Amino acid sequence: MLTPEDIQSHLDQLTKPPGSLARLEDLAARLCDIQQSLSPVTQPRRMVLFAGDHGVVESGVSAWPSDVTALMVANILGGGAASSVLAKQSHTNLKLVNVGVSGDIIQTANCSSDVTYVDSVIRSGTRDLSCEPAMTVAEFDQAWQIGFNEAERAYDDGIKVISCGEMGIGNTTPAACLTTLLADVPVEYSVGRGAGADDAMLSHKRTFVGDAVERVKSLEDKKAIAAVSGYEIVAMAGLMVRAAQQKLTIVLDGYVTTSAALIAERLHPGCAEYFIAAHLSAEPGHRRALEHLKLQPFLEWDMRLGEGSGALLLMPMLDAAAALMSNMATFADLGIPKEATS
Amino acid sequence: MLTPEDIQSHLDQLTKPPGSLARLEDLAARLCDIQQSLSPVTQPRRMVLFAGDHGVVESGVSAWPSDVTALMVANILGGGAASSVLAKQSHTNLKLVNVGVSGDIIQTANCSSDVTYVDSVIRSGTRDLSCEPAMTVAEFDQAWQIGFNEAERAYDDGIKVISCGEMGIGNTTPAACLTTLLADVPVEYSVGRGAGADDAMLSHKRTFVGDAVERVKSLEDKKAIAAVSGYEIVAMAGLMVRAAQQKLTIVLDGYVTTSAALIAERLHPGCAEYFIAAHLSAEPGHRRALEHLKLQPFLEWDMRLGEGSGALLLMPMLDAAAALMSNMATFADLGIPKEATS
Repeated sequence: MLTPEDIQSHLDQLTKPPGSLARLEDLAARLCDIQQSLSPVTQPRRMVLFAGDHGVVESGVSAWPSDVTALMVANILGGGAASSVLAKQSHTNLKLVNVGVSGDIIQTANCSSDVTYVDSVIRSGTRDLSCEPAMTVAEFDQAWQIGFNEAERAYDDGIKVISCGEMGIGNTTPAACLTTLLADVPVEYSVGRGAGADDAMLSHKRTFVGDAVERVKSLEDKKAIAAVSGYEIVAMAGLMVRAAQQKLTIVLDGYVTTSAALIAERLHPGCAEYFIAAHLSAEPGHRRALEHLKLQPFLEWDMRLGEGSGALLLMPMLDAAAALMSNMATFADLGIPKEATS
Repeated sequence: MLTPEDIQSHLDQLTKPPGSLARLEDLAARLCDIQQSLSPVTQPRRMVLFAGDHGVVESGVSAWPSDVTALMVANILGGGAASSVLAKQSHTNLKLVNVGVSGDIIQTANCSSDVTYVDSVIRSGTRDLSCEPAMTVAEFDQAWQIGFNEAERAYDDGIKVISCGEMGIGNTTPAACLTTLLADVPVEYSVGRGAGADDAMLSHKRTFVGDAVERVKSLEDKKAIAAVSGYEIVAMAGLMVRAAQQKLTIVLDGYVTTSAALIAERLHPGCAEYFIAAHLSAEPGHRRALEHLKLQPFLEWDMRLGEGSGALLLMPMLDAAAALMSNMATFADLGIPKEATS
């Protein structure tokens, strides 16, 4: 058993003033703690994106129509999306699992062989959570299992660091519901503008979210979550739970991903010990959701794209943190007396 | 001439909600603006570290003795320092120029062939700026020219992104003097704890810095700067000025590097247009120095190591930003109507 004190002691022996790499040391320590090793590894790694549509979009909560989900999935597969570019750049294996896209995925000619595509459609989008449960409990279980299996597969493939992300027009609305439901965050904070809602939409969204949470909050956990969630969100939660059981290092992306992390932690307490929060999103509820999970984000870049983009951006920093732990000299190596280091 | 509007227009055509990558878009835009290209390049790149000692250390402003400078230079050359590890990790060519280390550089057996070492010692450390000018104007010119030549060499070597960093026990004291002198920052902000000063040292440092700046502030610029500076700081300023003339992309590291940037901008106004501020240091004066240069730091990780470590940590983010500009699909490519994107 490697204790936080053991990790700190090693960090303080590296040839730098103690604590002088600050957050980079925190990141290194977190990797060591999760992996129970002073030489953490950050490769190979994988980003699993889950895509699905949302019935609530019909009620006008998004600046974009649902059709865009299928177009963007095709774009990710074709190598032209932010996530495709950032995955390649950060040497992260990219996989996309369609759990409920309502449109047809028309793969473009420049389809990139770097991305693996899996068709696991549960239903052509969820139901409109503003008037009925978004999914049944059976569908919840199905989505969960898809994510769970992806974590198993990653483990079998030797993956050391796993992340998940999402593509689904309208999914900041279920994310807001989950953040209010599971982390007690008031709708004034949990509901933001997502990918570009205007003032009227924002007001609509707050009403829908408040009403939906009110309607389900007395139900038992799984039924309540199913009613206000999305297939891609539940799949991410299933992935996180299994990945945590397998002691993999799990990198969280933004607001929607963190709402999945809230599900994972609620249903399987302790998962959060394997999480690293890559970034703080521009969505106002994100900070509170992370606080609920006792996580401090590393990048505060106001990103709000989804697709795992924030997690992918952090990946090279994981490499840097791990390399410092493994490759820096210690003061003993240099013959610098201990008293100079305190 | 590529205008900021041209750059923004291209960014807004990429397949993501406009502005959704936030600071990463800012970084991409800055690269495009500096390089006057929508396909900026971030390789090959080089980090030039300048090392020198400081007479003021004799007056008790540092937790570490001057001997540590030579030991750390040997450590950098041996591959065991944070900068050696981060340079390798980020595929950045590393060079170390000794402009005034007082001790002998004893290269260790595991000397890494990755780092180029140049001996250009001007003097065995500066004079004690708390009682006399740290360097003569002739020495200032010599240090400046060493940095200037390094920028020329980098350009000749085809380097596209250049950064510089420093190793010199005690050098946050001259950095504080320069920040107060050149950016009008009061000593309460410009003087911090450096690599580990205690309360008594902090109080000493403030007195020394306030007195030194008071003594030189009526002198003409170069003479005043020489009196309170360090060889490695002046060399960095010379490098920055020449690199800016050559229109290279220049990545700034922390507080000491930024004090060199203040010199560069004072003596050659306009240089700052080629700067990217990698990070915000834990040193309290850093934010104000960056504000003086109209720069916004990208990472706020409280790092205070020096050795170019913060700049090296940002390098993969430059790669990511550049890759997005060059490789993402546009909305037109996907056939998504324009009205959906606004």
